[in-house]
Amino acid sequence: MSQEDFSNYGSWNMWYSELHKAKVGITFKVNEVISTEQSPFQKISIFNTEEYGKVLLLDSAIMLTERDEFVYHEMISHPALFVHPDPKNVLVIGGGDGGTLREVAKHTNVEKMKLVEIDGLVIEKAKQYLPFVACGFDDPRVEVSVADGIDYVQNTNDTYQIILVDSADPVGPAEALFKKEFFMSCSDRLGDDGILIAQSESPFYHADTVRATYEKFKSVFPIVEIFTVWIPTYPSGLWSFAFCSKKYHPIKDFHESKYQDYGYQYYNKDLHRGAFAVPSFVKRLLD
Amino acid sequence: MSQEDFSNYGSWNMWYSELHKAKVGITFKVNEVISTEQSPFQKISIFNTEEYGKVLLLDSAIMLTERDEFVYHEMISHPALFVHPDPKNVLVIGGGDGGTLREVAKHTNVEKMKLVEIDGLVIEKAKQYLPFVACGFDDPRVEVSVADGIDYVQNTNDTYQIILVDSADPVGPAEALFKKEFFMSCSDRLGDDGILIAQSESPFYHADTVRATYEKFKSVFPIVEIFTVWIPTYPSGLWSFAFCSKKYHPIKDFHESKYQDYGYQYYNKDLHRGAFAVPSFVKRLLD
Repeated sequence: MSQEDFSNYGSWNMWYSELHKAKVGITFKVNEVISTEQSPFQKISIFNTEEYGKVLLLDSAIMLTERDEFVYHEMISHPALFVHPDPKNVLVIGGGDGGTLREVAKHTNVEKMKLVEIDGLVIEKAKQYLPFVACGFDDPRVEVSVADGIDYVQNTNDTYQIILVDSADPVGPAEALFKKEFFMSCSDRLGDDGILIAQSESPFYHADTVRATYEKFKSVFPIVEIFTVWIPTYPSGLWSFAFCSKKYHPIKDFHESKYQDYGYQYYNKDLHRGAFAVPSFVKRLLD
Repeated sequence: MSQEDFSNYGSWNMWYSELHKAKVGITFKVNEVISTEQSPFQKISIFNTEEYGKVLLLDSAIMLTERDEFVYHEMISHPALFVHPDPKNVLVIGGGDGGTLREVAKHTNVEKMKLVEIDGLVIEKAKQYLPFVACGFDDPRVEVSVADGIDYVQNTNDTYQIILVDSADPVGPAEALFKKEFFMSCSDRLGDDGILIAQSESPFYHADTVRATYEKFKSVFPIVEIFTVWIPTYPSGLWSFAFCSKKYHPIKDFHESKYQDYGYQYYNKDLHRGAFAVPSFVKRLLD
């Protein structure tokens, strides 16, 4: 028998499993827990993983990973920004990691990007550990408020062409961002031709939430269309966004002549249309 | 202290984790291992799981689950069958579970469906335990050969309008189904206007395999287009198929007037086009 090997004793061998339903989930090898801290709102954790790089978790739910965040951030931003003909002022509710700002900033016709994030510690941690998204804060057109997004849209007189609701799941601090009252306040802050985009969960795992949320969208906005994207680390991998609009239709008012290639990893002009061609079971969910 | 509870002692508490790369994967609660048996080709296992129903594994890789198999089987079949104007004879290589036959059989203009599966035990187990896919074998137009698909296409004189390569991953028995020689033999079995569809792995996790396989497709067929679908239990959740064709283009020759709604859960005429509008990183992979 060869000499016993003691060199691996005490090595960090941690797998993190996020259960997406009670009995299925994703499992990750975690190389290091970089930071984990309780804010007044939620537990904020940052891991380093082998396959997906840095991972941000809020209350143990994956918000983003370094390897696949491009899908979410490109797709919450560019479809609305290429449909609206003159998106001068853009409001981001949530999105404290900065990834959505990074994508909006690619549009040179945007003059102001206002971000309202309830939890200042998310912004701080992102700036410290997640520079690949937090670089979004560096643009001089960005204004940050650490405040409750619901209070903000109820009390401000500012108006926007586009509002992007970059929220967590409808539990905890983000629950109120799925309520009709909030969508009505957002609508009041949009001009007559405004567009609101909201992340709207997984049509495969969260069918009831999706159905109920779209009923609310439809009671507030004349044009409501769902589009789906693939995000490997989100529950089921199929994710949806709502395109809610007062005037512009996401396909009929998407003019290729306005499209610019800003070097996307996921988005492109064909995929813009393709994303709105959703699977049959998703269509049926909203009928 | 209350009386100790012995009622849960010895209950079956098994989680199955399939690692999709070395250090990330999917994890499932398994209610029951229904059957597991070694054939001359591979280990065939069938689980019952809480969230995805019955699961078929070949050599420990998930081939299908009851809850999401509809995506794969609809998408390997309908795009080609609606593009070819007269798909009388359809050949399925692999596909021993029967799910692809079930979808092809929906097309009333198909006269013959030949299935060539190397492992007869897969067919047997599917018929015994997976009736939701094995029902595909019930159609009187089906002819089954338990044989090596490569030998079959090299030695037969039969010709087909459509060949569907419903293979496992390119290791073990399916490895030769990713070789240029096989695609050339398939091409010989297709008429002048034939179409071959092959599952072509995950562009996110298997970029090198996808790139190398498409080079082979392009060296054999004049028209080669990739399309992507979402399959939650497959590695990364983003899966691809190759549309290889001698004459018909998947979009330009897709005529809505021919489209029939056979009651799909995933496919539909808008999604037919949308599936070919692939993410930018997938496009770049093939340039």
